[in-house]
Amino acid sequence: MTIEGFFTVWNQLDDNDRETLENSAFRQTISKGTVLHNGSQDCTGLICVISGQLRAYILSADGREITLYRLLERDICLFSASCMMRSIQFDITIEAEKESEIYMIPVEVYQSVMMKSAPLANFTNSIMASRFTDVMWLIEQIMWKRFDQRLAAFLVEESALEGSGSIKITHEKIAAHLGTAREVVTRMLKYFQSEGFVKLTRGSIEIIDEKALSAFGE
Amino acid sequence: MTIEGFFTVWNQLDDNDRETLENSAFRQTISKGTVLHNGSQDCTGLICVISGQLRAYILSADGREITLYRLLERDICLFSASCMMRSIQFDITIEAEKESEIYMIPVEVYQSVMMKSAPLANFTNSIMASRFTDVMWLIEQIMWKRFDQRLAAFLVEESALEGSGSIKITHEKIAAHLGTAREVVTRMLKYFQSEGFVKLTRGSIEIIDEKALSAFGE
Repeated sequence: MTIEGFFTVWNQLDDNDRETLENSAFRQTISKGTVLHNGSQDCTGLICVISGQLRAYILSADGREITLYRLLERDICLFSASCMMRSIQFDITIEAEKESEIYMIPVEVYQSVMMKSAPLANFTNSIMASRFTDVMWLIEQIMWKRFDQRLAAFLVEESALEGSGSIKITHEKIAAHLGTAREVVTRMLKYFQSEGFVKLTRGSIEIIDEKALSAFGE
Repeated sequence: MTIEGFFTVWNQLDDNDRETLENSAFRQTISKGTVLHNGSQDCTGLICVISGQLRAYILSADGREITLYRLLERDICLFSASCMMRSIQFDITIEAEKESEIYMIPVEVYQSVMMKSAPLANFTNSIMASRFTDVMWLIEQIMWKRFDQRLAAFLVEESALEGSGSIKITHEKIAAHLGTAREVVTRMLKYFQSEGFVKLTRGSIEIIDEKALSAFGE
C-alpha cells in the first residue's frame, strides 16, 4: 500500500505537496505491545496504518484505562500528531495491539502542507470528525447502556476483529478496555456462561451463541 | 460585535471570501429555551454567539440528557452545521439557555469558502479540536470522578456562569446536565447542605462555602 492510498484527496493536492508527503513518510514495523504515542507532550507524527491494529485509550491518574477506538488497516491516526493543533488539549495513548506496519509522516511536514492546502486541511477535518464520532458513540455507551450490554457488544466486536469465535484475552484486559474493575467483568462473564452465551476457559473466551450475544449487546 | 471578530484568520481570507461570509451572516435574537438545532438531520448553519449562552447536549432514546459543553460569547458552534461533513455521525441538540444574540452563517456559504480556503479550513479544524477537548474532559469526568465531585464542580461552574452565589435551578435540571436521576442529585445536595457547602431553598441553591466546594470538585 502506497502513501497516496490513505489520502482520498490525493488528486487535489499539487505535485509539490504530494512529493513532500511521499518523501517524508517512512515505513516502520511496530511490534505488538509497543506504545507509539503517549500524551499530548509527545509529538510522534501522523500514523497511517498499512496493516495491523492500534488502540487509542486514555489513562486516569491512578492507572485505569478506557479504550476510545481502534485503528485498523487504511486508518490514519491524527492525535499522534496532536501537537500541530494547539486546541487539542487532552492526552491519548496509542498502542500496537498487533504487529503493525505503518507509515509515519513527521508533524512539521504534514503541518506545512496542511496550512496551505485547503484539500488537505478539509481531509484532516474529516479524520477528526470520524474520531469525534467514535468518541461520541463511546459516551452514549457509557451513559445509556448497562454494563452487561457493553460487555456483550465488546465480545462480539473482538471476535470480529480476531476473525475467531475464541477470544484470547484476560478479564483484566477487558476491564481496561471498558474502564471498569476486573471483578465486574468476571462476574458478568460467569453470568454469560450460565446463559449459554460463552464458554470460559483459561486465558480465553469462546463465543457459543453469537446471535444471542449480539442481540443482547444492542 | 462584527462577524470578523469571530474569525482569528480573518486577515488571511481573501476579499471575496470575507465579503461572502459577511453578507451571508444574519443576526438573530434567540429567546431562552429555544432549541436551535436538533440532531444531524437538521442543517441549521454555523452559529456565532454574540452574547448569551447556548448548551450542547445529547439525548438518549428514552429522553435522558447529558450536557456536553456550553457556548458563550465569541464561541462558534460547528455542529449545528454538521451536515457539511459526512464524517460527523452523531446527534447533538443545541438550546439557548439564556436569551442570546447570534450570527447564523448558512451551511452552503460557509462550506463553499472552507472548501477552497486553507486558512478557514484550518480554523474550522481548531474549533472542532476545542469541542473534542471539551468532550474528552467530560469522558474523564464520567469515568474517573465520583458523582459527588462532578456535582460540586458543576455547582461552582454554574455559579461562575450566573455571576452569583445563588443558582436558580431545579434538581431535575441538574440531573439532566449530569446524565443522572433526580433522586441522586437531591440526595447529594442534602449531603452538601449537611456539610455546610450549600443552603437549599425552594428553586435555588445558595453556595455557602465556595472554597470547600471547589476543593471537593477537583
